[in-house]
Amino acid sequence: MNFRITVFFLVAFFSLTVIAQDGHGRHFAIPDADGYFSLKCDFHIHTVFSDGLVWPKLRVMEAWNEGLDVIAITDHLEYRPFKDEISGDHNTSYDIASKANNYGIILIKGGEITRKMPPGHSNALFLKDNNLLDTPEWNDVFEEASKQEAFIFWTHPGWKAQQPDTMLWFEEHSKLLQEGKIHGIEIVNYKEYYPQAFQWALDKNLTIMGNSDIHGSVFQEFDIAFGEHRPITLVFACEKSSEGVRDALFDGRTAVIFNGKIFGKREWVDHLFHACVEVEPDLSSAKENSGSIFLTNKSDLGFELTPGKEAEKYGMIYHIDLPAHSTIKLTASGKRDKVFNSGQIFVFGVDNIFDAPDQTLQVKLKF
Amino acid sequence: MNFRITVFFLVAFFSLTVIAQDGHGRHFAIPDADGYFSLKCDFHIHTVFSDGLVWPKLRVMEAWNEGLDVIAITDHLEYRPFKDEISGDHNTSYDIASKANNYGIILIKGGEITRKMPPGHSNALFLKDNNLLDTPEWNDVFEEASKQEAFIFWTHPGWKAQQPDTMLWFEEHSKLLQEGKIHGIEIVNYKEYYPQAFQWALDKNLTIMGNSDIHGSVFQEFDIAFGEHRPITLVFACEKSSEGVRDALFDGRTAVIFNGKIFGKREWVDHLFHACVEVEPDLSSAKENSGSIFLTNKSDLGFELTPGKEAEKYGMIYHIDLPAHSTIKLTASGKRDKVFNSGQIFVFGVDNIFDAPDQTLQVKLKF
Amino acid sequence: MNFRITVFFLVAFFSLTVIAQDGHGRHFAIPDADGYFSLKCDFHIHTVFSDGLVWPKLRVMEAWNEGLDVIAITDHLEYRPFKDEISGDHNTSYDIASKANNYGIILIKGGEITRKMPPGHSNALFLKDNNLLDTPEWNDVFEEASKQEAFIFWTHPGWKAQQPDTMLWFEEHSKLLQEGKIHGIEIVNYKEYYPQAFQWALDKNLTIMGNSDIHGSVFQEFDIAFGEHRPITLVFACEKSSEGVRDALFDGRTAVIFNGKIFGKREWVDHLFHACVEVEPDLSSAKENSGSIFLTNKSDLGFELTPGKEAEKYGMIYHIDLPAHSTIKLTASGKRDKVFNSGQIFVFGVDNIFDAPDQTLQVKLKF
Amino acid sequence: MNFRITVFFLVAFFSLTVIAQDGHGRHFAIPDADGYFSLKCDFHIHTVFSDGLVWPKLRVMEAWNEGLDVIAITDHLEYRPFKDEISGDHNTSYDIASKANNYGIILIKGGEITRKMPPGHSNALFLKDNNLLDTPEWNDVFEEASKQEAFIFWTHPGWKAQQPDTMLWFEEHSKLLQEGKIHGIEIVNYKEYYPQAFQWALDKNLTIMGNSDIHGSVFQEFDIAFGEHRPITLVFACEKSSEGVRDALFDGRTAVIFNGKIFGKREWVDHLFHACVEVEPDLSSAKENSGSIFLTNKSDLGFELTPGKEAEKYGMIYHIDLPAHSTIKLTASGKRDKVFNSGQIFVFGVDNIFDAPDQTLQVKLKF
Repeated sequence: MNFRITVFFLVAFFSLTVIAQDGHGRHFAIPDADGYFSLKCDFHIHTVFSDGLVWPKLRVMEAWNEGLDVIAITDHLEYRPFKDEISGDHNTSYDIASKANNYGIILIKGGEITRKMPPGHSNALFLKDNNLLDTPEWNDVFEEASKQEAFIFWTHPGWKAQQPDTMLWFEEHSKLLQEGKIHGIEIVNYKEYYPQAFQWALDKNLTIMGNSDIHGSVFQEFDIAFGEHRPITLVFACEKSSEGVRDALFDGRTAVIFNGKIFGKREWVDHLFHACVEVEPDLSSAKENSGSIFLTNKSDLGFELTPGKEAEKYGMIYHIDLPAHSTIKLTASGKRDKVFNSGQIFVFGVDNIFDAPDQTLQVKLKF
Repeated sequence: MNFRITVFFLVAFFSLTVIAQDGHGRHFAIPDADGYFSLKCDFHIHTVFSDGLVWPKLRVMEAWNEGLDVIAITDHLEYRPFKDEISGDHNTSYDIASKANNYGIILIKGGEITRKMPPGHSNALFLKDNNLLDTPEWNDVFEEASKQEAFIFWTHPGWKAQQPDTMLWFEEHSKLLQEGKIHGIEIVNYKEYYPQAFQWALDKNLTIMGNSDIHGSVFQEFDIAFGEHRPITLVFACEKSSEGVRDALFDGRTAVIFNGKIFGKREWVDHLFHACVEVEPDLSSAKENSGSIFLTNKSDLGFELTPGKEAEKYGMIYHIDLPAHSTIKLTASGKRDKVFNSGQIFVFGVDNIFDAPDQTLQVKLKF
Repeated sequence: MNFRITVFFLVAFFSLTVIAQDGHGRHFAIPDADGYFSLKCDFHIHTVFSDGLVWPKLRVMEAWNEGLDVIAITDHLEYRPFKDEISGDHNTSYDIASKANNYGIILIKGGEITRKMPPGHSNALFLKDNNLLDTPEWNDVFEEASKQEAFIFWTHPGWKAQQPDTMLWFEEHSKLLQEGKIHGIEIVNYKEYYPQAFQWALDKNLTIMGNSDIHGSVFQEFDIAFGEHRPITLVFACEKSSEGVRDALFDGRTAVIFNGKIFGKREWVDHLFHACVEVEPDLSSAKENSGSIFLTNKSDLGFELTPGKEAEKYGMIYHIDLPAHSTIKLTASGKRDKVFNSGQIFVFGVDNIFDAPDQTLQVKLKF
Repeated sequence: MNFRITVFFLVAFFSLTVIAQDGHGRHFAIPDADGYFSLKCDFHIHTVFSDGLVWPKLRVMEAWNEGLDVIAITDHLEYRPFKDEISGDHNTSYDIASKANNYGIILIKGGEITRKMPPGHSNALFLKDNNLLDTPEWNDVFEEASKQEAFIFWTHPGWKAQQPDTMLWFEEHSKLLQEGKIHGIEIVNYKEYYPQAFQWALDKNLTIMGNSDIHGSVFQEFDIAFGEHRPITLVFACEKSSEGVRDALFDGRTAVIFNGKIFGKREWVDHLFHACVEVEPDLSSAKENSGSIFLTNKSDLGFELTPGKEAEKYGMIYHIDLPAHSTIKLTASGKRDKVFNSGQIFVFGVDNIFDAPDQTLQVKLKF
């Protein structure tokens, strides 16, 4: 038996294996609305080509299995602990992922600029040649990234390994901002949320980002099968393409989904809520002094509502759950001195949507 | 403080409680198709007005919470173990449920004719006055139900308490069949499946039914939150109304969903599969000697596929999962003596859809 | 065929059904410790004999299925909306439940004194004859309950239907307290938590209670199969009996489990944490300047830890999850100016255990 | 800013990250009994050092997170598709995993002998130097593995890529068996079960194995958080060590856990059932003509029971679920001609334990 022939057949056999092991692409329903696609994105991902623990192809399979639309491979440019066994340059991980992308995932080339504080770590997206960013001085790296027209954002700005006592905005960041070399900021990284960064984003008009910074296996660290998700940057794009994502990022059209909560600028989280939730009157149960509406949540996100003070006076005194893919009925009842009129509008707080640190989105519902 | 006034306020307060405790109506997605609505129905339900353990209103809330479209309240006509404490006649449970139905559930009045074998137990649906069925002789009950133009089906025909050794079709059943007084048969009841009843249904052209026969709490006995369901009779109706359900039942347009499996006449389970699953070619990855398709499952049902012998020859050698709300990609690869041509059709068995006992549905997919 | 004989056999058949439908008793692991049994209790439960929607027997089955040790049936003494169909006196629901209790559940007879505010609603436990509490004046009811040596607690003190604007402690409550006619207070009821009531309990030395106040089906409203639970009063009893529960309640030995959080007096939540979590050094990985410990959670409760300021300096900068039935490893690493010595003690906050409103339990772990 | 110093700090920071990302070790409860430890093992695992998609360290973390006791790293000896980027020899993946093993996982060095059929693929465990097995002729590889005193088993003997039409036992396997160079066989591999291999194992006294053959991420392909598991070889070892595992494997003390089912030689699956399930009489509910027992399942495995013909006659006519960590109550009732006597023994089939293909384990329970 000739050994080379043996190996030849082996290759043929193994190529089949892939068919079964790619699994299924879960649907992750967030309706598009008003001309915007709701794209589920993760812009911060590592592989064995930096200090991640998985091969680039697995990152594509994870995204497909979880139902994401867009991922960026962003290996550290300066930190490669496995280099004794793993060769390749700063473009290799993207190239391997790219070749394995049979699912229409939008794949973005990026890199993590990995420096001590200030300015700490930053991700550059839409890079053309990562290798050119491998320079000693951090100023030069930002310069080169800008030259490549990258979208740059500060990653984990509250990471205690770099911000041990209080969370600081350094002069270096102001300078980068002035020079147009920083466009966004992570307010969520991996399993941490930084309210301070959210406030900075609002004050300085930075694009709001939330990403996984995943090093291990996504499905090992998040219970996707339960409906959990890694942190996600939701991008509202005019087209479903790398270019569409890029435009939306530079334009600040994002929201962050993290741990059952949603964070973002008011305009975009309000857009998101109304893209997901439909309101219809329940004509069949209308009575003289009460009115009902159905709220239908067409998305995979859950919402929690708290009736405002006026709604309380009409009998809506409980906290309300509106889970993913469900419908609830709300009833306003006039009583004693309160007369209910059809068409009345009540304010509700959406307890798990934040349009500023510690401030929930207010929505108006017509009964 | 006047006690009567106290009580008056209490009533007002308690009426509010209901708002919060009705919970949410989960969406149970089974797409409509080809002019038929896919209605999720349970035609066998008990309350405290026979030997069930819940109040009729809770049955409506369970249906709404689980995402059902149609339920029938079918208390035993001859068996009421709680009659020391619970009064009311054979119409009371339906009337109470009816008053509590604020969710658009289609509510059908029925009753379980509860006799020893033969003919055993049977459900009559679309009754007008249940009290008229309270007669000593079982013949008279079927006669009266027929007079009221009820749809009648044999319930749990394989229940070991009544069929201890083998499962028998009695002369009495033949007589009922001949006289047009039996129209359907449960092939699934509660947590049991009766293949023999499935075969009888096919042989004698009875409408195929599967119901919960629930006595306790549905959510206590089935893990609805995990995506489990009570046994369900899926009805393919031309309109979303009691009349539409009635027509479909008499016409045999049903399938049974039980424990992740689907049972029914070939015509209707085939209809169901294609209502749920969309097939699209993956043009982007077409190669000279291989072709791929995407299968998209738009439903809350999961499917499992086994490639046929011909598909195996093109490299599809593994069992395939197509979970609820997901997309998978299948690739046919020509090799050695097998040349793949675009447009080739392969047969797959759907492992969890049965069009006869021990016989799975075969579907054809075009690559 | 004689009808009476038919019915006779029916009874025999149905009695079998019960065997299958009682389901399984889930284990709900909270280890006993230091001579105290950790009893999982719900002291606030309704049936169709007031405005609940289930038969008393189902309440026993729910408790058995969920893994509870103790339940009290506490129907409203003054409010019975289903009395047109349901007869029986104020002791009937307890008697029916009692007869159905084949599982060793400790069943406590109680009732809900249902009055307008003040004093609002209160539960009386360990009653001898509920019927004697059916009197017009609320003062008389408390008097009678005291005569029967009941344990009395204020239920849902923050219910907005009775406390619409702010949550008030009335003179009437002070009087009851002075007279020894109120012994506990619900800080959690159904799906609401009242921090103000928690503070009152601490200030006035009332026993801390949290109960379901369930009207519908427990499994329909809480995802027990996912590891969720109804609100539970955890009682630390010297013996596993009604008498043991009673002693513990009068002695204040409780904690409340609600929605993944635990509330209670410091002594008892500290006891609970150490009953659940074992700490062991990891000798195998001890190094010169670092030390590790294993934390093993033997319970069905999850815990979340935040390292204190000192622990942060030794590299423990992340929030820590210690889920039910799992083990985690924590490592303290000396660096720069911080020298780690074996045996060093670090403080951690347990984020989901509260020993006062907004104050988490602090525990010390030895490395 | 000096770049080398930058990098130095980076290393320090990243070493911290590891603490948080290692997650928690789930407890996977299968009680030890009769002097045997019940060790949960996976003897077939790939990494990027062959065609797996994860770094060796992640394999250790997966085992720890899932609650396994023993894993073998078994990269293909002849197939390394990523060798353009990944260097190292056939021992490297084991060495890296070994260094990352901070959790007391028993780590076994192995390799997959990857040849065309016959003899197909085989795993060799307890190897000393994998590099010596890299020889052209398959005979020589088995010879070398034997010399290193390896435990050798045939992997995926029914893999359709190598057994396209029927599943064959070749002369080559008989020869290996005769020469003592094959000791076990996988009856379960990844997501497939081979009844034929089970029969061969029984007929030829081979050790029964079931393994994951995982290439991707375990948690991505199995819903561990739901209580699912990868296929596992359960080993009944006299000591918790590599040597103990080795002795048990050569002695045939195993069972296979796969997809909620258990397979094995009668002696060992019977041992397993009784290690997990405790039987106690329910003295409190003993009556003249009936008796009850409690079955308590102390394990994370679920069991399903079917009463035998004799038990049916005493009213046990339903299929019985005994989920993980739960207790059920069974009642035998004499009636008509059947007189129940305390101490009577009934046979039950355990529907999900197989002691031969299509043959379930029978257990006797004393009432």
